[in-house]
Amino acid sequence: MSSTFGRLFTVTTFGESHGPAVGVVVDGMPPGLAVEAALVQRELDRRRPGQSALTTQRSEADQVEILSGVFEGVSLGTPIAMLVRNTDARSKDYEALRDVFRPGHADYSTFQKYGVRDHRGGGRSSGRETVGRVAASALARGALATVGVSVVGGTIQVGDVKAVRRDWDQAERNPVRCPDAAAAETMAALILTAKEQQDSVGGVVEIVARGVPAGWGDPTMDKLDARLGAAMLSIPATKGVEIGGGFGMCALTGSQTNDVFDGERFVTNFAGGIAGGISNGAEVVVRVAVRPATSIGRPQTAAVLGGGTTTIAIEGRHDPCICPRVVPVAEAMMALTLMDAWLHQRALRGRDR
Amino acid sequence: MSSTFGRLFTVTTFGESHGPAVGVVVDGMPPGLAVEAALVQRELDRRRPGQSALTTQRSEADQVEILSGVFEGVSLGTPIAMLVRNTDARSKDYEALRDVFRPGHADYSTFQKYGVRDHRGGGRSSGRETVGRVAASALARGALATVGVSVVGGTIQVGDVKAVRRDWDQAERNPVRCPDAAAAETMAALILTAKEQQDSVGGVVEIVARGVPAGWGDPTMDKLDARLGAAMLSIPATKGVEIGGGFGMCALTGSQTNDVFDGERFVTNFAGGIAGGISNGAEVVVRVAVRPATSIGRPQTAAVLGGGTTTIAIEGRHDPCICPRVVPVAEAMMALTLMDAWLHQRALRGRDR
Amino acid sequence: MSSTFGRLFTVTTFGESHGPAVGVVVDGMPPGLAVEAALVQRELDRRRPGQSALTTQRSEADQVEILSGVFEGVSLGTPIAMLVRNTDARSKDYEALRDVFRPGHADYSTFQKYGVRDHRGGGRSSGRETVGRVAASALARGALATVGVSVVGGTIQVGDVKAVRRDWDQAERNPVRCPDAAAAETMAALILTAKEQQDSVGGVVEIVARGVPAGWGDPTMDKLDARLGAAMLSIPATKGVEIGGGFGMCALTGSQTNDVFDGERFVTNFAGGIAGGISNGAEVVVRVAVRPATSIGRPQTAAVLGGGTTTIAIEGRHDPCICPRVVPVAEAMMALTLMDAWLHQRALRGRDR
Amino acid sequence: MSSTFGRLFTVTTFGESHGPAVGVVVDGMPPGLAVEAALVQRELDRRRPGQSALTTQRSEADQVEILSGVFEGVSLGTPIAMLVRNTDARSKDYEALRDVFRPGHADYSTFQKYGVRDHRGGGRSSGRETVGRVAASALARGALATVGVSVVGGTIQVGDVKAVRRDWDQAERNPVRCPDAAAAETMAALILTAKEQQDSVGGVVEIVARGVPAGWGDPTMDKLDARLGAAMLSIPATKGVEIGGGFGMCALTGSQTNDVFDGERFVTNFAGGIAGGISNGAEVVVRVAVRPATSIGRPQTAAVLGGGTTTIAIEGRHDPCICPRVVPVAEAMMALTLMDAWLHQRALRGRDR
Repeated sequence: MSSTFGRLFTVTTFGESHGPAVGVVVDGMPPGLAVEAALVQRELDRRRPGQSALTTQRSEADQVEILSGVFEGVSLGTPIAMLVRNTDARSKDYEALRDVFRPGHADYSTFQKYGVRDHRGGGRSSGRETVGRVAASALARGALATVGVSVVGGTIQVGDVKAVRRDWDQAERNPVRCPDAAAAETMAALILTAKEQQDSVGGVVEIVARGVPAGWGDPTMDKLDARLGAAMLSIPATKGVEIGGGFGMCALTGSQTNDVFDGERFVTNFAGGIAGGISNGAEVVVRVAVRPATSIGRPQTAAVLGGGTTTIAIEGRHDPCICPRVVPVAEAMMALTLMDAWLHQRALRGRDR
Repeated sequence: MSSTFGRLFTVTTFGESHGPAVGVVVDGMPPGLAVEAALVQRELDRRRPGQSALTTQRSEADQVEILSGVFEGVSLGTPIAMLVRNTDARSKDYEALRDVFRPGHADYSTFQKYGVRDHRGGGRSSGRETVGRVAASALARGALATVGVSVVGGTIQVGDVKAVRRDWDQAERNPVRCPDAAAAETMAALILTAKEQQDSVGGVVEIVARGVPAGWGDPTMDKLDARLGAAMLSIPATKGVEIGGGFGMCALTGSQTNDVFDGERFVTNFAGGIAGGISNGAEVVVRVAVRPATSIGRPQTAAVLGGGTTTIAIEGRHDPCICPRVVPVAEAMMALTLMDAWLHQRALRGRDR
Repeated sequence: MSSTFGRLFTVTTFGESHGPAVGVVVDGMPPGLAVEAALVQRELDRRRPGQSALTTQRSEADQVEILSGVFEGVSLGTPIAMLVRNTDARSKDYEALRDVFRPGHADYSTFQKYGVRDHRGGGRSSGRETVGRVAASALARGALATVGVSVVGGTIQVGDVKAVRRDWDQAERNPVRCPDAAAAETMAALILTAKEQQDSVGGVVEIVARGVPAGWGDPTMDKLDARLGAAMLSIPATKGVEIGGGFGMCALTGSQTNDVFDGERFVTNFAGGIAGGISNGAEVVVRVAVRPATSIGRPQTAAVLGGGTTTIAIEGRHDPCICPRVVPVAEAMMALTLMDAWLHQRALRGRDR
Repeated sequence: MSSTFGRLFTVTTFGESHGPAVGVVVDGMPPGLAVEAALVQRELDRRRPGQSALTTQRSEADQVEILSGVFEGVSLGTPIAMLVRNTDARSKDYEALRDVFRPGHADYSTFQKYGVRDHRGGGRSSGRETVGRVAASALARGALATVGVSVVGGTIQVGDVKAVRRDWDQAERNPVRCPDAAAAETMAALILTAKEQQDSVGGVVEIVARGVPAGWGDPTMDKLDARLGAAMLSIPATKGVEIGGGFGMCALTGSQTNDVFDGERFVTNFAGGIAGGISNGAEVVVRVAVRPATSIGRPQTAAVLGGGTTTIAIEGRHDPCICPRVVPVAEAMMALTLMDAWLHQRALRGRDR
């Protein structure tokens, strides 16, 4: 299929985890908008590994170079290519895995797909591929800001610990990226325990878009829900997505979950800001299920290329809980999805909003 | 955006709920495969309204006409257009709604998007649009069967009642389409109660694909999870999707959820048959959150075009629980998604499997 | 590949020459625009066979039915499906050709592609497929007219007879559709001679778009030249396309062919209204090479399915010169191409022009 | 619109003529194929400027770096990104043009499109953008070779001098890239004369694909003719394209131009290897009209940003005839087009050929 996300704001990533570089080509950026490398770098820094004891110790500087599409600080409307060199790829960490399919990983399915093998750290399936998406999202955020749209997010559940508050500023102040300071501490402890036990733990990430006007999206195949679903489930380690009331609505009734619109605003937001696939002017709210990281230190039975099994313990540098690092990526995918929907609406109506 | 699903097996639907007809053009059907109108009709009959007291009493014959792409019972490899006339559209039921935005419906967001209004029964946002998808899925099912892939599904939750068993044959034998006969009865009672109370109730639908070989899907933007997420969330009234362990994995650990592959088969299936976005040979398992139907008889406050609110009671013929009718549509979307992934894999590898 | 033209204004045709019907689904029509079936019918009538002694005597009423996307005379912004029944398909005319590959036709290559055969009159390769394109173009023309863009065209060469004048109104008044009344008569005589000789003759069609503002198109892969090239070469029996000065510029110099722009308008138009792939505000001028019709009455050697050759004389009802009937189709493809370019420009700039 | 060519073998270029770099991302390369940087470099060297007195003296090393998608000399099936740094971009040559629209160039139309200006050497409209295409074509050529398909080409006309012979090996031995050694000398003289006169001259390039099996392409919108038309007309400075007999057929009759197929091979090839949009097994033959280069030293009247005109003489380093440098690019576009058609046929039929 394809390494491209979006149709009018197309984001094509490239690069393997342990190849020379990762990067992205963004096509469809409207011309005449300010593009600062520093803002792209800021988003990459948020995604960067090695920021706390809770995340992998792989240390990548992730310095971005803008190769095209920007002239004198302004977007030209042409493709913007951005490049990040891999500098701390320790491929030899993976030498022992040349013939082993790591449990829970994409190793086996990838080999079945392609018939060739890049055993070094997951190749394209690695979270490292998301560098390009996050770089692209900085452009989308800048463009969306011109029409008042912004995106925030955080970890709202780790294991069975759930956030109660939604203080999105707080989310940037703790290593779990939890919008609830109290819950963040419990979550952090849970993650460190998993790490000590050479195990991992899952969680839930919530992303909120503010300022989205009514009218973005589509009524059928390209419902905004559908595009967001694809966006979120394209992030490594995600296995579920819900919009607004989501699965929680299944046990409720229509009289409870029909959002009342008083002519000016929605009193409730079970729809998560999307009715019939089209934004309704309320906040767009999406939650993403993040599975426990598949790379764990505990000994596991693993299948071997050519037949049979062996026992492995994964020694590399890994995240005991991926949620904190999924947050900027899921925000990125929200921004990319909205950017594309916005440009489609401009095409449909011939005006900016 | 677009009314087309898929890239190599493209399914483009058309038609409003209360227009002259609904239909579909399927482009990309491999040539030389048997296509029987009767099999298409069988799928449409499964989707058809008015089959039990649990569903809307709108009575559409939904007779399909194949307009192209089939000659002497065999697919030509050219676009297959299929048409279903709307015969029981009572547009005047909706006359009173000409200026009213029904709560929970797409009326308001659709008007904001397009600036024009088709007030008759939801237009494209109606479940009636799915006729085309289901017709298309009959072709996909036929093609997929040639490589041993099949799709089943059913309602596994209504309100807070959950199915315990997964007897998929049973799912076709009760009006809830529940794979657990005992649970089906409780569910049916719950739905009828909601109906009596002029209310509606939500639920969960589960779809399973069998026989999918390892290697379908893609590692990044087009993860099979992502495509299935888009597929399912493009169905009206769905607000969540999960693959395999889904949200339930969040509270578990990696050592619990890493599926053990013994070299021949997967002992567990937390991945839902998809690892790193690519099928791994296990059953592909997807669950879809279906919100309570938004059309309810109870009086509700509704916004009015031009400002202010009014009170409405929706009188039309509606489903108190949409799950039974979502089942064939969700199966259809699974089939369409797999069909597209299969053709991509054929392009990539130059062979059938 | 695909039966769809365009990306934002997508036109998907369906139907075989001798199947039940031909038609089209147009997705991406902006909402709120007047759509009259009569205007669609007018374009179809221009394309219709049997209008003069110069064209095939197949007699199709080509009555269009609009199935969706229009409500109370106005586009909804949703897919517009249009259907035309085949009524005068005499499939048995083709029975003798069941195992014969007609010379010059697509019979052999089509069979090699699909491995199955629809021997009845060319299937999808028939000019009959263009009914859907022409119906779609009526919508595009209506939309483009709102920003002052119009499309005209005609036959400017038949055999070695060339039109000197470009009186586009005249083009609708003679059966050759030639913008030069004097040349039209000579051309008509040439066509009738070919017909008497059971032979056919080629020619050139020129299409001009007026009122296209500067800025439509793209600098690289999607140059407006490239999109027009694809558009025109997708018409049956076309084997060449040139923009502006075209092949004639090859023997000239840069000092002769660089169009002088005096700050207000272009003094010459060697660029055919497109510089660097982007419209420059001058008239967009395209010429299309139409090969002699491949269906001729003369005895020809033809290959037979299974091996060997035979001699055939094609008895059906055919056009001795296709140019007059290519005109409305080529105009249609110009309109569809511009429509798509216009919507892309709206997406890029967020405004109507 | 888009900087991407192809759908299954997608080639996305990036980079401005005077930005930091140009490059390409190729997505859809089948896995398991040998990829050598040396072969990519060889194609780039063929395209490179400064190879003879006939071409621009801009001196770019055009050293390619493969950033992804290749591991241990073999394609992974993942995106292959390739980068070429711009090293000899003398942007200050263009400083005087900051407010001037060069005649015949894309300067004015580009400014109208984007509303911002990169005055340095054409930006994306520069021939420099084709570096990425040519790099990508090396991959396509390697893949196509595995099924016996190869591509050759050359300059067959300069000014009014036409090649008579088609000795494709010869085309690589003279600086005009003409397949006729005698004609090449006359052409070279003509080009040098134009150069001395500070003028430029046009020509025609012919590209031939050998070994293409019958069955590639599509009968309607994606006729192989149409895809090739788009491919060729996306090359800078091209203004016409014809397949097989092309415009020359217009003055002939059907009995002359219907290719006779004797059951084994085609005796003539007016169809240029494509019947009804689908390859028929004969050589695929395409000719491209290349306009005289727009950059000429002679004084010309040019429009000025903000109004009025001035007189300019373009001082930079330019090609007096672009044909020799169009050859490898047109070959590249043929290879990319065929690659995409091949992969589509694999998807359709589920086998390699």
